[in-house]
Amino acid sequence: MQTLFVELGERRYPIFIGHTLDASSLLAPYIKAKQVMIVTNTTVAALYLEKYTLQFEQLGKSVATCILPDGEKYKDFGHLHLIFDALLQAGFNRDCTIVALGGGVIGDMAGYAAASFQRGVNFIQIPTTLLSQVDSSVGGKTGINHPLGKNMIGAFKQPEAVIADMAVLDTLPPRELSAGMAEVIKYALLCDAEFLLWLEQNMSKLMAGDADLLAQAVYRCCAHKARIVANDETEKGERALLNLGHTFGHAIESYLGYGTWLHGEAVATGMVMAAELSARQGWIDTVDVQRIQQIILAANLPIVSPAIPLEQFLNYMSHDKKVLDGQLRLILLKQLGKAVITNEFDQNALIAAIQAHQQAA
Amino acid sequence: MQTLFVELGERRYPIFIGHTLDASSLLAPYIKAKQVMIVTNTTVAALYLEKYTLQFEQLGKSVATCILPDGEKYKDFGHLHLIFDALLQAGFNRDCTIVALGGGVIGDMAGYAAASFQRGVNFIQIPTTLLSQVDSSVGGKTGINHPLGKNMIGAFKQPEAVIADMAVLDTLPPRELSAGMAEVIKYALLCDAEFLLWLEQNMSKLMAGDADLLAQAVYRCCAHKARIVANDETEKGERALLNLGHTFGHAIESYLGYGTWLHGEAVATGMVMAAELSARQGWIDTVDVQRIQQIILAANLPIVSPAIPLEQFLNYMSHDKKVLDGQLRLILLKQLGKAVITNEFDQNALIAAIQAHQQAA
Repeated sequence: MQTLFVELGERRYPIFIGHTLDASSLLAPYIKAKQVMIVTNTTVAALYLEKYTLQFEQLGKSVATCILPDGEKYKDFGHLHLIFDALLQAGFNRDCTIVALGGGVIGDMAGYAAASFQRGVNFIQIPTTLLSQVDSSVGGKTGINHPLGKNMIGAFKQPEAVIADMAVLDTLPPRELSAGMAEVIKYALLCDAEFLLWLEQNMSKLMAGDADLLAQAVYRCCAHKARIVANDETEKGERALLNLGHTFGHAIESYLGYGTWLHGEAVATGMVMAAELSARQGWIDTVDVQRIQQIILAANLPIVSPAIPLEQFLNYMSHDKKVLDGQLRLILLKQLGKAVITNEFDQNALIAAIQAHQQAA
Repeated sequence: MQTLFVELGERRYPIFIGHTLDASSLLAPYIKAKQVMIVTNTTVAALYLEKYTLQFEQLGKSVATCILPDGEKYKDFGHLHLIFDALLQAGFNRDCTIVALGGGVIGDMAGYAAASFQRGVNFIQIPTTLLSQVDSSVGGKTGINHPLGKNMIGAFKQPEAVIADMAVLDTLPPRELSAGMAEVIKYALLCDAEFLLWLEQNMSKLMAGDADLLAQAVYRCCAHKARIVANDETEKGERALLNLGHTFGHAIESYLGYGTWLHGEAVATGMVMAAELSARQGWIDTVDVQRIQQIILAANLPIVSPAIPLEQFLNYMSHDKKVLDGQLRLILLKQLGKAVITNEFDQNALIAAIQAHQQAA
């Protein structure tokens, strides 16, 4: 097992990364009072709820559960409210702990509930997908979707601790493994060219579920994210780089309806579009774009989106949280392993980059 | 005009207190970007929306508005969502500013919306009731009600600035002025015995709307609150003292349905119950309880609640945010001007204190 700390002063917290971890002993120091609410979804509950409930009960905790339907399309106000209902019906107080047992959607919703319930209670993350292990469970971004935009409502809420257990990836469907790999590739592209090489060498083993290699990849991604988040917790600057591919990706997800494509799939295609635009700006070569497409294809991820009317695509992009005073800003690549946030791109090049990676209408 | 700063490090902010203040020049340094959303209610909109819209437009801002129905019973998820709808329909971004123009309910909702929209945007408070000027607009507590408990969902969100203009109190209904006076009296009881004397001497002029005396009272209350909040922003300790009377009061409000009694009315009766329990613990004299009842009556506030079945009353109290590991904690008086938070009270004395200040069933 490896332990990585996210250095956020009084909100410093550990990420435990390994295989078949003992949540009970690892989390004991991080849960102060008796009440524990496990928030999970129907899919994960069937696999892991009993196991983790027992581990918390071993600690003498009084465990309640809130089981939500599985999927991004339930990341809304109505289902958030079910968590508050469960907390209040169980008589939970301000010293309770909310545990997110699931992927990014569960982490986002349980985290936002933890930020908001009684103006903030303790929060533990047990991510059960590769995507949430490398990305959404680190750094405290939580929230829900609004019909007019993804993640539009939420909070920065740091957990007390995160457990990233490779054992849970055994039951992860291949499509979800791929979606998580999109975020892994993202770290390589935005800040670690050496890691890109490592991924190119190891992608087939990673996709076959090699637990040691997966743990190495998770550690490396979490280390990058922890460093970036420690420098810029509330995304005034550098942290925005983690959104490489996301503004394009959000447009795809918004158009298709949340949950049609997985988040990681949309991000993968979004990264190709961002790379394409970067190349059209003359910052990277077309060879680099091809290399990016290849690693994304090797992870069984899409490099073209369905046909989306341009005006709608741009309109969805304009709802992005990185828009400042009416100006769209994008994360683009100055070279492989070096991303920047910028509003200095050619609008026609942006349009060409989008259209170059869409299916014909 | 007097300016008071709430000292919260990088979140330090000013409260401007005076008569007929120029919001435009006072707020200019605190609104960075162009988009301003004024959140208000139907009652306040009719009186002040045009005036403040003009003041923001003078600053070159692009002003949108969200007008909610007036009343505590609308402080819920559905109406919070209307603010998000308005923000997204107007295309507002992360650099926008949300202005709360109204009383405590508007401040709580607009503040929680500002905490949550895009994970946090700028926030300005223009409180239009005495209650919100002396209490709810200072210190960053925001939130909404849940059918199972008041203020159960929310966030700590500090504003960039607060404008407390006595001019708006001219249009305040007498019942609302009284409700605000309950919180003014609260500060005297919990930490300022000299102020209690001042209030006893000046209550009739205050209730007649003397603007100079009101400004003095608002300044004194805000100074107390600013000091307490600076010491304990997220209510780990001392800040809980500001809840004197509130646990009892919340039970009354919850039982009657939010909005039947005004919050200040419920707090007034709650303070009498807290004083009664303090006397039964032998900490203050029955003479002190009488003095508290007299100042509350002088502010035209109730000192007895309607009949509420005891079990329900205690059950509502048990949902309080100050409950820790199953233990109810109350703010009680060790002497006039000195409150403590404690779980050391006799359960029978608590019941007797409640029953002594209820109408016969």
